[in-house]
Amino acid sequence: MLGLALPAGLEPQTPAVIAPEIRKTAEALREKAFAGSQAARWVEELSDHVGPRLSGSPGDAAAVSWAVATLKARGFANVRAEKAVTHVWKRGIETGEITAPFAQHLVLTALGGSVPTPAEGLEAEIVELPSLAALEAPTVNVRGKIVFFDKKMERTGDGSGYGAAVDVRSHGAARAAKLGAVGVLIRSIATDHNRTPHTGGTDYEAGIAKIPAAALSVPDAELLERLVKEKKPVRVRFVLTCHDDPDAETANVVGEIPGRERPEEIVLLGAHLDSWDLATGAIDDGAGCGIVIEAARQIGQLPRRPRRTVRVVLFANEEHGQAGAKAYRQAHDSEIERHVAALEADSGTDAPTGFSWNAGPTAEPLIREIAAILAPVGAGEMIPRGSGGTDVAPLRQAGVPVFSVRQDSSRYFDYHHTANDTFDKIVPASLDRMVAAVSAFAYVAAEMPEPFEKIPAEARKKDEW
Amino acid sequence: MLGLALPAGLEPQTPAVIAPEIRKTAEALREKAFAGSQAARWVEELSDHVGPRLSGSPGDAAAVSWAVATLKARGFANVRAEKAVTHVWKRGIETGEITAPFAQHLVLTALGGSVPTPAEGLEAEIVELPSLAALEAPTVNVRGKIVFFDKKMERTGDGSGYGAAVDVRSHGAARAAKLGAVGVLIRSIATDHNRTPHTGGTDYEAGIAKIPAAALSVPDAELLERLVKEKKPVRVRFVLTCHDDPDAETANVVGEIPGRERPEEIVLLGAHLDSWDLATGAIDDGAGCGIVIEAARQIGQLPRRPRRTVRVVLFANEEHGQAGAKAYRQAHDSEIERHVAALEADSGTDAPTGFSWNAGPTAEPLIREIAAILAPVGAGEMIPRGSGGTDVAPLRQAGVPVFSVRQDSSRYFDYHHTANDTFDKIVPASLDRMVAAVSAFAYVAAEMPEPFEKIPAEARKKDEW
Repeated sequence: MLGLALPAGLEPQTPAVIAPEIRKTAEALREKAFAGSQAARWVEELSDHVGPRLSGSPGDAAAVSWAVATLKARGFANVRAEKAVTHVWKRGIETGEITAPFAQHLVLTALGGSVPTPAEGLEAEIVELPSLAALEAPTVNVRGKIVFFDKKMERTGDGSGYGAAVDVRSHGAARAAKLGAVGVLIRSIATDHNRTPHTGGTDYEAGIAKIPAAALSVPDAELLERLVKEKKPVRVRFVLTCHDDPDAETANVVGEIPGRERPEEIVLLGAHLDSWDLATGAIDDGAGCGIVIEAARQIGQLPRRPRRTVRVVLFANEEHGQAGAKAYRQAHDSEIERHVAALEADSGTDAPTGFSWNAGPTAEPLIREIAAILAPVGAGEMIPRGSGGTDVAPLRQAGVPVFSVRQDSSRYFDYHHTANDTFDKIVPASLDRMVAAVSAFAYVAAEMPEPFEKIPAEARKKDEW
Repeated sequence: MLGLALPAGLEPQTPAVIAPEIRKTAEALREKAFAGSQAARWVEELSDHVGPRLSGSPGDAAAVSWAVATLKARGFANVRAEKAVTHVWKRGIETGEITAPFAQHLVLTALGGSVPTPAEGLEAEIVELPSLAALEAPTVNVRGKIVFFDKKMERTGDGSGYGAAVDVRSHGAARAAKLGAVGVLIRSIATDHNRTPHTGGTDYEAGIAKIPAAALSVPDAELLERLVKEKKPVRVRFVLTCHDDPDAETANVVGEIPGRERPEEIVLLGAHLDSWDLATGAIDDGAGCGIVIEAARQIGQLPRRPRRTVRVVLFANEEHGQAGAKAYRQAHDSEIERHVAALEADSGTDAPTGFSWNAGPTAEPLIREIAAILAPVGAGEMIPRGSGGTDVAPLRQAGVPVFSVRQDSSRYFDYHHTANDTFDKIVPASLDRMVAAVSAFAYVAAEMPEPFEKIPAEARKKDEW
């Protein structure tokens, strides 16, 4: 037993919302996972045996097969692959160089969805800008230029630095093209100083020219920055041969621990099965898959299963399009009302720091008691108005209460979306804490006699990154 | 003035070896550099304007031009490029993959000097071994196999972990070939977990087949290690197109602060101008070049120059062959006796921790007083029997007293010989401390009435990494 449980005789004065036997079981789940779980093993299999699994790629299909086989072998019921149709993009050759005032090699990677450059490459003078807003300054003329968005991401514990910086990646190409730029380079949205550039999706806009877009590693971005400061024109050439392929089938993989009394009511534990292609996706989102598989598996091993169904959903195509989240919403439309809670684990391998939540106001006393159960593994802080995660956003928008166990993200953006996202980065003991928090939460949500109040209509729209 | 200088009235009881006016000038040099020097500026120019400068490459020639121009512009006398002839090796395509039991991409880089693989690649089962010695075990059969040397380097402050691990890189290919292996992969000799493999020279042996040799990034080596543990045969395929080119001219670049009384006597401050090709060589050895250029430049700005000449030598081809060191030894044979001290700076950007030395025993009281002068910048610890550095080894072998300001090396092998060796890794304030130590030492060595006693014959052979 960890330190924060109250000793006998010091129980809270107000009657507990969570009945003692439910709390006891939740605490036992927490303690069991804290003492050591299999979460890292599922991450290792997915990373090392399947590897990169970009949506629509052969690796993605292999991941679906792995997930179906794993959930079946680990005792889940109703295991199935639920079809989704995904956009398909393939990375190709990607090279870059500074051609003036000095010749230097550049390490860069295409942003997901980028169009290719001409075969001979795209060469132009660069215009360095600190933000999307800077594009609009009257003194700025990007016509015929390559815009270099040099926006620095701040390292924060909660990942908020990412949210503040990522707009240049998502929208920089479209916004610069509108003003006549011929290409976009960004400083990776990242906190490291390795020559491992960070990819991530970029979104074009209908009716606007699609221009090639790539991320420079941070050291390469800082080289450009230093050369720009020397006040001579800086020219860059880069080659990308990435391209779109026809849409392809992929799938959300679903498995359940059926409820003993109300199996039609669902507590959804999500993560995403796809990854970027530069590495084996251990932290993004192998870790999340390992956490939710293991949390549900532990609940399935209880002597008495909870009242409601705990459903694991490993979503397809989270990284660029969310085809899986949309397909799930559509396929399960008739049972959306019966989703009593949804959670996604998609913040890597590090330890829990709290949890965000969004539900009707009458849920708060219960949430408060859940926080006390999660506190001993570091997850006790309550953060209101959470988004729940990218793949559960459509459920939140339908009023389904959402939760998200927050993780220390101070290291996550060193590796996120790079070649460095490999199994050696996984911290098994921190995954165990995540399993402890997620299994205890999911058990309470699945066992409480009354479900959480739905999210009020005015509170359903919030979107975090 | 920093804390360790003795207040008036507390002077040492025994008569000082270093006369007060010499000590005062040495301390003033130290304080000036400590307060801020131009060292990082020279590193920035060499890294950002010249970039990679593998021996015999166009970048190497550009570095020689830069060094000659820089030394001339910064007030050095007798600036010249002294010819050396270097072996030339060119990196090419380098790709790798695990083909069984699971398909996975591998990030690797050819070891310097490696022969290429067949054009279609080299594929074989791997045999994982922890050391060179393990090759000799009676149960080990590497015939027809790719030997995977999985030797872990320990992180240490003094770099000794490198010396203990690097033999598999230098000699693994030759030793494995002797036993019939067809290729060698090593875990990078490194302390990081980035997918930036560490190159470095490998040496073949006359009469033994030359087999291709490459370094895996640490995460890739650990992936192989995990798969080997699963007890199924692991097969790897890799492609290298690196090759030798005809020998080429390169040069040591020399510049001097001529002595006022005995200009024919020389205090040599060395660093190496060449770098590996994967990055811009900021820490290896742009940093050393910046330190010695700046230390000598500061001495040149004194109102009265020291008695002897301070000679900066930026050596060619340190990384794989030491053609520059050998050429210097040969070209300066007639004045070797007049070298009163030699030092090389080649341990990166971090702060000084002490200094190693090797000279005749009568030098020790003087060395002890030098240590007291260097202590306020962290360089006070005396380490006997130092090697002086790779490029001054031929001088040490001729009896020339050698010194080396040791640096904190705990971070150096995260970046050494990788694509990550870029200017953003430079810590200007730590370079300033190095300049403080090197300029104070060099001044004392150049100004003392009597030179250090030569190294006794029996103490000249020591070789560190």
